[in-house]
Amino acid sequence: MRAARFHARNDIRIEDIPEPELRPGTVAIDVAWCGICGTDLHEYLEGPIFVPPAGHPHPISGESAPVTMGHEFSGTITHLGEGVTDLNVGQNVVVEPYIIAEDVDTSPGQSYQLSKDMNFIGLGGHGGGLSEKIVVQRRWVHPIGDIPLDQAALIEPLSVAHHAATRSGAAAGQTAIVGGAGPIGLLTAAVLKAKGLTVFISELSEARKAMAESTGVADEVFDPRESDVAESVRQRTDGKGADVGFECSSVPAVLDMLIDATRPGGVIVNVSIWGHRPEVDLPSLVLKEIDLRGTIGYAGDHPETIRLVSEGTIDLSAFITARIGLDALITGGFDELIDNNEHHVKIIVNPRA
Amino acid sequence: MRAARFHARNDIRIEDIPEPELRPGTVAIDVAWCGICGTDLHEYLEGPIFVPPAGHPHPISGESAPVTMGHEFSGTITHLGEGVTDLNVGQNVVVEPYIIAEDVDTSPGQSYQLSKDMNFIGLGGHGGGLSEKIVVQRRWVHPIGDIPLDQAALIEPLSVAHHAATRSGAAAGQTAIVGGAGPIGLLTAAVLKAKGLTVFISELSEARKAMAESTGVADEVFDPRESDVAESVRQRTDGKGADVGFECSSVPAVLDMLIDATRPGGVIVNVSIWGHRPEVDLPSLVLKEIDLRGTIGYAGDHPETIRLVSEGTIDLSAFITARIGLDALITGGFDELIDNNEHHVKIIVNPRA
Repeated sequence: MRAARFHARNDIRIEDIPEPELRPGTVAIDVAWCGICGTDLHEYLEGPIFVPPAGHPHPISGESAPVTMGHEFSGTITHLGEGVTDLNVGQNVVVEPYIIAEDVDTSPGQSYQLSKDMNFIGLGGHGGGLSEKIVVQRRWVHPIGDIPLDQAALIEPLSVAHHAATRSGAAAGQTAIVGGAGPIGLLTAAVLKAKGLTVFISELSEARKAMAESTGVADEVFDPRESDVAESVRQRTDGKGADVGFECSSVPAVLDMLIDATRPGGVIVNVSIWGHRPEVDLPSLVLKEIDLRGTIGYAGDHPETIRLVSEGTIDLSAFITARIGLDALITGGFDELIDNNEHHVKIIVNPRA
Repeated sequence: MRAARFHARNDIRIEDIPEPELRPGTVAIDVAWCGICGTDLHEYLEGPIFVPPAGHPHPISGESAPVTMGHEFSGTITHLGEGVTDLNVGQNVVVEPYIIAEDVDTSPGQSYQLSKDMNFIGLGGHGGGLSEKIVVQRRWVHPIGDIPLDQAALIEPLSVAHHAATRSGAAAGQTAIVGGAGPIGLLTAAVLKAKGLTVFISELSEARKAMAESTGVADEVFDPRESDVAESVRQRTDGKGADVGFECSSVPAVLDMLIDATRPGGVIVNVSIWGHRPEVDLPSLVLKEIDLRGTIGYAGDHPETIRLVSEGTIDLSAFITARIGLDALITGGFDELIDNNEHHVKIIVNPRA
């Protein structure tokens, strides 16, 4: 079968590899669509980061580069391994793409995303969504009912956003400020809107501002070149500031703005991945008793995320900005996201086209 | 009466000033002892910080430099203003030294420490503990029963520590790592021990390490020059790391260590006051889903803090390292804390001696 494989930085190849084997307790899936994530871009441009370098196998998967890429994917079940009795062949599903040790409890309420040596399918081994077929452990498979398979490829990043929103403790009626309207910023805003918050977004890019407005995820979009965003937030909250803030940009000035724009006693969730150690306005964080919370991945978020989409509370179709086949992965996918980043939210790939 | 007054940086004078007037709703107190705080030192060396500079009156107190200093004090009630019926002349008390707007709700459970323009008695006006007498609003007066008045001068910083411990959500049976064994680090450790945690302290100074050991506030003291503190904490927690960390040093390397030493999903409370914006290891904070929480002052902490001392759970006498009269404030107080910082925890001042 065909698969996109990460060999090294700037070296991702479309190759023919053997089909994965069904084993007891696993599920075989024909991949329908797979999104390209910012993490994939980082691997391509600066990696290997999550990918175990050749010769350094991951302690759980035992694999190292080359590995199949793709962790945001949907598909249809083709075979069920021995002992899997609660799913059906032909069912449409998404995969919660974790590589987590066998003995880690992944039942509801467990913080398994923080377990030792956690990595992701499509980065750390165990196949990936940028291939025609994949076989995964039963515990990572979530049926999606009648959600269209193209939209379903966005359930993984939406679960990241859902987990971030949950980490914030945000509640209906509160006000949120989201720093950055990239894919994760937009999806975080979408979850917050779905939870009944008033959502403000700060963004510089004209294209992303337009997307934040057209998708309806923001009540108002502020451009930091045009006004003091924190002051704008205070003006709309009786001088109080936002209850929760979300850092979705990896830009120090945005984190500064969030610490300014969030009310005393408020919570800021850092959703972005930092490539360096930024200076942080701890003096203000202390005086305002702000909580700055890290968030990574998801844990038990997929069922609720799927429900939000299934019930129509969140419409993911608006966030799909291009559809390509696997052969176009580099030119129409990676290079397009690098060169025309701000015009895209999510490019999805059909590995069979 | 005599009072220590902050005029400007490096200019604190012992002066004769009029006695404060009793007003309805207030309590007149003869000050017994007043501690010198790190904040006072900062004002002396780098101020004015909390002190409103001359010509820039504080919006609530209406005062600006010169102001009377001292916010860690105990004393005895001498007169009760009209309407104050639940206290008695002769009662020993401490003062929760806030300057907070009249209309702010300061009842239990309210986060009044975060209210607009909050400042402190002894810094922002309203008199101070480094004077013979003070008159304060009833709501800031807490009776101390038979706690000795010298020890009672430390109830204010102990309340800072209590508030920080509460902010962390620390619970009995958990493990804490405290970064820095200055006055606030030691008192934070004391509160954590009183709450039933296992407490580790990281400290460089020989004198402070000895104090952390002799006062019994730490189960173990680690010297970062001798070992990797985070690794030592992991070794003593089955590889997990501490549940809660406390930054009490304003040293970036200590914050780094805390992010390393605290377990995934753990909480770090920043108790120290930063004079600059440090680089923070956000990459690790994100991947470990750590909460970094600011804390400032106290809110509703005094009654519980007083109970811990009154019942003998915390012995504050061990933290008093010198007693001086008001005339010795600069030489025996401020200069001593600057020149022999690590040999002192708390120098207390008798403003009548």
